[in-house]
Amino acid sequence: MSSPVKYFFDLMSQPSRAMYIIFKLSGSKVQNVPVALRKGEHLTEKFRDEVNKFQKVPCIVDGDFKLAESIAILRYMARKEEIKETLYPISEKSSRLLSKVDEFLEWQHLTLRLSCGSAFRMKWLEPMMGIQREEKQIKEFEKLMEVNLNIMENVWLKDTPFVTGNELTAADIFGACEIEQTKLFGYNAGTNRPKVDAWLKKVREATNPSYDEAHAFVFKMSKL
Amino acid sequence: MSSPVKYFFDLMSQPSRAMYIIFKLSGSKVQNVPVALRKGEHLTEKFRDEVNKFQKVPCIVDGDFKLAESIAILRYMARKEEIKETLYPISEKSSRLLSKVDEFLEWQHLTLRLSCGSAFRMKWLEPMMGIQREEKQIKEFEKLMEVNLNIMENVWLKDTPFVTGNELTAADIFGACEIEQTKLFGYNAGTNRPKVDAWLKKVREATNPSYDEAHAFVFKMSKL
Repeated sequence: MSSPVKYFFDLMSQPSRAMYIIFKLSGSKVQNVPVALRKGEHLTEKFRDEVNKFQKVPCIVDGDFKLAESIAILRYMARKEEIKETLYPISEKSSRLLSKVDEFLEWQHLTLRLSCGSAFRMKWLEPMMGIQREEKQIKEFEKLMEVNLNIMENVWLKDTPFVTGNELTAADIFGACEIEQTKLFGYNAGTNRPKVDAWLKKVREATNPSYDEAHAFVFKMSKL
Repeated sequence: MSSPVKYFFDLMSQPSRAMYIIFKLSGSKVQNVPVALRKGEHLTEKFRDEVNKFQKVPCIVDGDFKLAESIAILRYMARKEEIKETLYPISEKSSRLLSKVDEFLEWQHLTLRLSCGSAFRMKWLEPMMGIQREEKQIKEFEKLMEVNLNIMENVWLKDTPFVTGNELTAADIFGACEIEQTKLFGYNAGTNRPKVDAWLKKVREATNPSYDEAHAFVFKMSKL
């Protein structure tokens, strides 16, 4: 019997949470290995040499195989049949649904993740570390965040309750984990965005108790 | 007989070039439809309704199916057996090589693409449009670009001639197209980075004449 895949994560990291929830929902045989980013546990030589040369989370180690990047991990684990088919439908050849999930997962990097993640960093993380940005730069990322949340409301969720249709997929989970992070600096993405608001509730319902478990810190620290 | 997939692209766009080269090398049956971004051809209502609701390139239309995001397109076309197996090795189940290609393709969004693309925009495109950024902000993206090019040199290309090993894959083509764009503002990524320098030449050799064809404008306008 082979050892389970080791999953290295920190629930403060949005894609770490997404894969954590996806593994839970899929009943994946992974061994959870929490990594405390705040303590710099990812910055040791040992972590770099034995776990992830990029010194980031999430990442996995499967025997002698190391893999970083959450979405590459999702696909690898799906091919190992460790991901629920409804969340990432790889079995159907030339599946259009799979392509729509991929389209969202590729889209979110330079849109939702860049803007929500940067706003989180500039408005919550950096001030806590004594780093002060110019207000103009913060405003630029906040504006970009608004633009992308509006694309969620008016394009992705225009006609369907979930991002790619009537059912929850990995796309919804990745998107929601990114957006939840903004609560830490007191932002409510659902205000004036009824579709985003309803969708966040639906994603939470469809994935609980894992969603609340993964977001325990975010919800506790959130000012909302 | 079904109609060929329509490929909408502009060779000024880095991922458009990457997929253009990949289609050429693969002998893919696609119908090329150039879109002139500089003329705003992607901003019409017709383009939004009939081609891509996100109003960006590259994208494809396959009968009644529309798909955006270059890497989602790469995967969709690979499942249709329109992509050379060596470039994107999807046939081998649980392939570790495929995961390494995916790892790079997911990594590059918020690293190479964000930094090289932003530097290009701030140092070449925006000045041409009369937009002036603060020097401090430009410097921040230039620094980020240097950091990521150093990761190319010291991590991705540390032990192998290509990004994922001894053979060219889609990862190399995406990476090289992003880096070539920096030549437009007079930057030479290969200076003081001998591995990046040798790799760029190898990618060009392995993909020509398509590489030079796709980069005709970039090379012509480049100050190098």
